[in-house]
Amino acid sequence: MRFAIYGTGGMGREVAPIAADQLVAEEISYLSDDRPDIVFVDDSENAPTVCNGLPVISFRQLQSSEHRTRKIIAAVGDGRIRKKIEDRCIAADLQIASLTAKTARIFGGVAVGAGSVLCDFTTVTSNIKIGKSFQANVYSYVMHDCVIGDYVTFAPRVCCNGNVHIGDFAYVGAGAMFIQGTRDRPLIIGEGAVVGMGAVVLKSVAPYTVVVGNPARLVKTLHRPD
Amino acid sequence: MRFAIYGTGGMGREVAPIAADQLVAEEISYLSDDRPDIVFVDDSENAPTVCNGLPVISFRQLQSSEHRTRKIIAAVGDGRIRKKIEDRCIAADLQIASLTAKTARIFGGVAVGAGSVLCDFTTVTSNIKIGKSFQANVYSYVMHDCVIGDYVTFAPRVCCNGNVHIGDFAYVGAGAMFIQGTRDRPLIIGEGAVVGMGAVVLKSVAPYTVVVGNPARLVKTLHRPD
Amino acid sequence: MRFAIYGTGGMGREVAPIAADQLVAEEISYLSDDRPDIVFVDDSENAPTVCNGLPVISFRQLQSSEHRTRKIIAAVGDGRIRKKIEDRCIAADLQIASLTAKTARIFGGVAVGAGSVLCDFTTVTSNIKIGKSFQANVYSYVMHDCVIGDYVTFAPRVCCNGNVHIGDFAYVGAGAMFIQGTRDRPLIIGEGAVVGMGAVVLKSVAPYTVVVGNPARLVKTLHRPD
Ligand SMILES: CC(=O)SCCNC(=O)CCNC(=O)[C@H](O)C(C)(C)COP(=O)(O)OP(=O)(O)OC[C@H]1O[C@@H](n2cnc3c(N)ncnc32)[C@H](O)[C@@H]1OP(=O)(O)O
Ligand SMILES: CC(=O)SCCNC(=O)CCNC(=O)[C@H](O)C(C)(C)COP(=O)(O)OP(=O)(O)OC[C@H]1O[C@@H](n2cnc3c(N)ncnc32)[C@H](O)[C@@H]1OP(=O)(O)O
Ligand SMILES: CC(=O)SCCNC(=O)CCNC(=O)[C@H](O)C(C)(C)COP(=O)(O)OP(=O)(O)OC[C@H]1O[C@@H](n2cnc3c(N)ncnc32)[C@H](O)[C@@H]1OP(=O)(O)O
Ligand SMILES: O=c1ccn([C@@H]2O[C@H](COP(=O)(O)OP(=O)(O)O)[C@@H](O)[C@H]2O)c(=O)[nH]1
Ligand SMILES: O=c1ccn([C@@H]2O[C@H](COP(=O)(O)OP(=O)(O)O)[C@@H](O)[C@H]2O)c(=O)[nH]1
Ligand SMILES: O=c1ccn([C@@H]2O[C@H](COP(=O)(O)OP(=O)(O)O)[C@@H](O)[C@H]2O)c(=O)[nH]1
Repeated sequence: MRFAIYGTGGMGREVAPIAADQLVAEEISYLSDDRPDIVFVDDSENAPTVCNGLPVISFRQLQSSEHRTRKIIAAVGDGRIRKKIEDRCIAADLQIASLTAKTARIFGGVAVGAGSVLCDFTTVTSNIKIGKSFQANVYSYVMHDCVIGDYVTFAPRVCCNGNVHIGDFAYVGAGAMFIQGTRDRPLIIGEGAVVGMGAVVLKSVAPYTVVVGNPARLVKTLHRPD
Repeated sequence: MRFAIYGTGGMGREVAPIAADQLVAEEISYLSDDRPDIVFVDDSENAPTVCNGLPVISFRQLQSSEHRTRKIIAAVGDGRIRKKIEDRCIAADLQIASLTAKTARIFGGVAVGAGSVLCDFTTVTSNIKIGKSFQANVYSYVMHDCVIGDYVTFAPRVCCNGNVHIGDFAYVGAGAMFIQGTRDRPLIIGEGAVVGMGAVVLKSVAPYTVVVGNPARLVKTLHRPD
Repeated sequence: MRFAIYGTGGMGREVAPIAADQLVAEEISYLSDDRPDIVFVDDSENAPTVCNGLPVISFRQLQSSEHRTRKIIAAVGDGRIRKKIEDRCIAADLQIASLTAKTARIFGGVAVGAGSVLCDFTTVTSNIKIGKSFQANVYSYVMHDCVIGDYVTFAPRVCCNGNVHIGDFAYVGAGAMFIQGTRDRPLIIGEGAVVGMGAVVLKSVAPYTVVVGNPARLVKTLHRPD
């Protein structure tokens, strides 16, 4: 397995070591014959050519025969940008990978879509359905019977208790907590909702709204993307 | 060791994998000769006959010669129900087990009663006394010099700092935090107290009261059970 | 490696097991030939002579030929006291150690000064600079591009997101969270600032002030030490 980490921002630089661990776990040398098996990809003109010891290539280079067998991780915190990057890669016939840190815990009856990143100390317990390109930053957990959409982002330490349903593109800030729902009445976090860092969410959250605080209250309504 | 996980609810389904890990750690095959060493027990008429691949038996079947050597884990979040289940099992001469997830950390000078479940990424540090049937959900921690009663329940991510004393049947919501006490003046959480998800507890909490918020404040007084 | 854990308080008793783990990791027997490789040091007249099975010695004994090759960990939660202890040890030509729990995760491009203690389940990700005598209690994390001064203390479960700069002697309470800064505009926590347990910090914090709450607000201004 050879990886391409898309993005040299904070998230990219935190995801690359997880990819390295995964290569080690697969007993493939991280830096065999001086040609690293991990590269970064970045579209910015200001991107460095080397980042934390790994080469940074362009999207054009990624499509070359030298690199196009790499599996791609869209390693940016914004779910819309992950979608854009992944769609472009898929259109170019490239493949999307998933990463699971070696300290992550996943129990049974769990389905996770392509492109997911489960960072260190994350937990996904039993009977859970998660869509494409889910990003769970360090210490985040998802408990029993949750259903999570596509391109959902959990900052570090998110507490997603049982029977919570989360819509596509929702963003959940660090340390935010969801009270459990029930099978008949799940707690529902709407599509594109934003949950502030440290929010203590006791009630369902409407799509494209922002909630913050303890207990969480509405502070903003967002424009729906076209 | 053969286990019976009492309850097929959210907690039961999250505890069964810990039991499986413990069997693996003891090098006993989880599914040897097609007869799983783990079964669920459930008293509900609506309980399935198979849950996450494991058989679900009744309390009557549990007492049969085929099953009565199993060690029992009362895997429900409500401490009063755990007591009821455990008392009934003990009256039927069955044995109670304890479970410790493989990622849990326990330091020295710690005494924990029977029936405890320490889930993944929990920590119990030094010089701590914990009663019967303690349930510490994922990421919860208990620090130095704490004293915890019987049938206490910690939801995920509870922060129990040093020198906190917690009474029997207390329930602590996800992510709740207790400020440290001192040896001479511990922080005291009364019997049957309920601490809301995300509460930041700076002062002792009276028995059978509910506190929530940052900082935590009283919101309800509960009826004491008879 | 032989250790001397300075302080038999809560922190000392929680740090000693990390030192023991580190000895085991280095395949040095914890209790070889009945002479423990770990001792406590405590200046208090009321200190016990044995603590959790390990001898407690005085600073004078620490300087004796029997003990002076030990590496020292100032294991107290107060950064000013750690400085005092370390300065005195360095003046006596003794050496300061650092400890990293076996479950801690440290990524690349990280520089950490002498005397640090990274407790269980802590994470330090990529491109981070940390000064002397940093103490990160259980579950605390430091994310990309943070810069942390000397004698900084993190209680358990601190959430330090990307691009946060923290001054010398700052104390961060359990479960407190910092919103991320940017490369050009880091979030700044001033020297000697105190952040309350559970605080949700959205704005920079002035030196020698105390903030608490969600969102965090100023509650006190402290006297600067001379
Ligand atoms: C490794 C990493 O770094 S991963 C990144 C981790 N970072 C996070 O989780 C941060 C998540 N982001 C937040 O919490 C943001 O504050 C957001 C998204 C909720 C809101 O951002 P904005 O839309 O810019 O809102 P804005 O800053 O204008 O705040 C609006 C109001 O809500 C309040 N507010 C904003 N965020 C929060 C919060 N997390 N908790 C409490 N109050 C908040 C503000 O104080 C402001 O109140 P006011 O109108 O009374 O002054
Ligand atoms: C895997 C798993 O799922 S494990 C389960 C994890 N889940 C938890 O930890 C949830 C713990 N439960 C709670 O926090 C509950 O809200 C309880 C137990 C504190 C209170 O429940 P109830 O008795 O039903 O209280 P109720 O919902 O009527 O709330 C009473 C008041 O307190 C407020 N409140 C309730 N809980 C909280 C909370 N956690 N934080 C802040 N405010 C709260 C309510 O908004 C309400 O205020 P109001 O009167 O101004 O409207
Ligand atoms: C293993 C271990 O045990 S590690 C230790 C972990 N412990 C911690 O993290 C605790 C950190 N300490 C705190 O949070 C403390 O309360 C401090 C340092 C912020 C303040 O302590 P003090 O200076 O004694 O402040 P004091 O208790 O007088 O409180 C001042 C005000 O702030 C409020 N307050 C204090 N701390 C907090 C807090 N964490 N959250 C919300 N409000 C708080 C008080 O209620 C009080 O409000 P009031 O004036 O309206 O009554
Ligand atoms: O279509 C895109 C969008 C973003 N990026 C890169 O992804 C990184 C995002 O970094 P940022 O710090 O903004 O976000 P984070 O890593 O914190 O999610 C930057 O290097 C961008 O140049 C990119 O290559 N292509
Ligand atoms: O005396 C009892 C009480 C409860 N249960 C079962 O325990 C489970 C509890 O599940 P629930 O989702 O209510 O609670 P949780 O698992 O979240 O604690 C249910 O299947 C109940 O039928 C039982 O078998 N006997
Ligand atoms: O200069 C000093 C300061 C403190 N201590 C010891 O360090 C411990 C500090 O314990 P405390 O419970 O006050 O703090 P914590 O361990 O919680 O940080 C006590 O045994 C003190 O006697 C010491 O030996 N020399």
